[in-house]
Amino acid sequence: MTKSAKIPKATITRLSIYYRQLELLEFDGYRMVSSEKLAWLCQGNPAQVRKDLGYFGEFGVRGVGYDVIDLQAHIKRILAVNRDWNLGIAGIGNLGSALLQHQNLSARGFRCIAAFDNDSRKIGKTTPAGLKIMDIKDLDQTVEDLKIEIGVITTPPSAAQAVADLFLKARVNALLNFSPTRITVPECCLVENIDFTVKLDMISYELQHEIGA
Amino acid sequence: MTKSAKIPKATITRLSIYYRQLELLEFDGYRMVSSEKLAWLCQGNPAQVRKDLGYFGEFGVRGVGYDVIDLQAHIKRILAVNRDWNLGIAGIGNLGSALLQHQNLSARGFRCIAAFDNDSRKIGKTTPAGLKIMDIKDLDQTVEDLKIEIGVITTPPSAAQAVADLFLKARVNALLNFSPTRITVPECCLVENIDFTVKLDMISYELQHEIGA
Repeated sequence: MTKSAKIPKATITRLSIYYRQLELLEFDGYRMVSSEKLAWLCQGNPAQVRKDLGYFGEFGVRGVGYDVIDLQAHIKRILAVNRDWNLGIAGIGNLGSALLQHQNLSARGFRCIAAFDNDSRKIGKTTPAGLKIMDIKDLDQTVEDLKIEIGVITTPPSAAQAVADLFLKARVNALLNFSPTRITVPECCLVENIDFTVKLDMISYELQHEIGA
Repeated sequence: MTKSAKIPKATITRLSIYYRQLELLEFDGYRMVSSEKLAWLCQGNPAQVRKDLGYFGEFGVRGVGYDVIDLQAHIKRILAVNRDWNLGIAGIGNLGSALLQHQNLSARGFRCIAAFDNDSRKIGKTTPAGLKIMDIKDLDQTVEDLKIEIGVITTPPSAAQAVADLFLKARVNALLNFSPTRITVPECCLVENIDFTVKLDMISYELQHEIGA
């Protein structure tokens, strides 16, 4: 694991995608999977699968493949999703509400344990998931009390930077930003942006070639 | 453009990301950008930037870089986002509602022009964006009437496959699936899945190494 600094970000993303396919394979009753099949399921290539996993050890058996359940456990450990993470969500509009009810987040150990907003009509209300919406002004104290480790930003773009600053001030150094705007953070902090339109661009590209073909 | 079949999917995704950074550079007043700077902004590497763009032509000037505005136009053309696409959204819960109000979709030419649900309490209501929610049973006719080209699935997981089948029956061959489940489609069709938890896995991985460091 000391090589971690050299591991490409794309490898980590692909591990996450391999993991999802391994879950589905297990669900379908498969016990072993070849790098060829795993690559095909993930729209990748077998050499890449072997290289990605090779950064972390020898998980497969030559000519046989990978044990579907074992490999899931290995990847969970590598990604550190074999533990729970505490999330706080700021901005409880439609998207924030959708995330609070998202079945997959808690199933994967990403526990949304605090919800913040600045709208007095929302503050104090209880979400369908049973969380009381807190005043964004109380973010700092709540982060400390609940040991929030990851901040999720689902505010309108105009509020995103201010909310990011609040999280950083409260020493939450990892942010997931759904707001379609740029957030500036110090080098020590981590921001991942989710942009739905990147996938739509992919669809657009493919459709054009289909139509053109 | 005849080489398109050989162009890696990852290249298309990166073009989309380059485009977003070029927009921000333009907003900040930059007229030219080097492959080094563009790579740095996109957390990639300069050789990859040059290779990705090289699939489609010679857009840069050696030693000077790329024209920020010209390169945006080239990428828009490559991705076919220099035109509008008509989207229909099925499942008007929190996430569907969030997408209907998402500023970036329409700004990028992805027009949400139809909203479907199977809940009689929602059907006939008008969304904040001004769309009347239609009965999912009318999807087929609506797709034809409004020339819907891309289907967006924001239903609960249990309904996702049935909705995908409805879109396919109506000859919508490109789907964007937000539902955390697997959708099976024929080879001729295109499904892109959006899984928020892949980005959270990335954060988890990075945080672990930060804590461990």
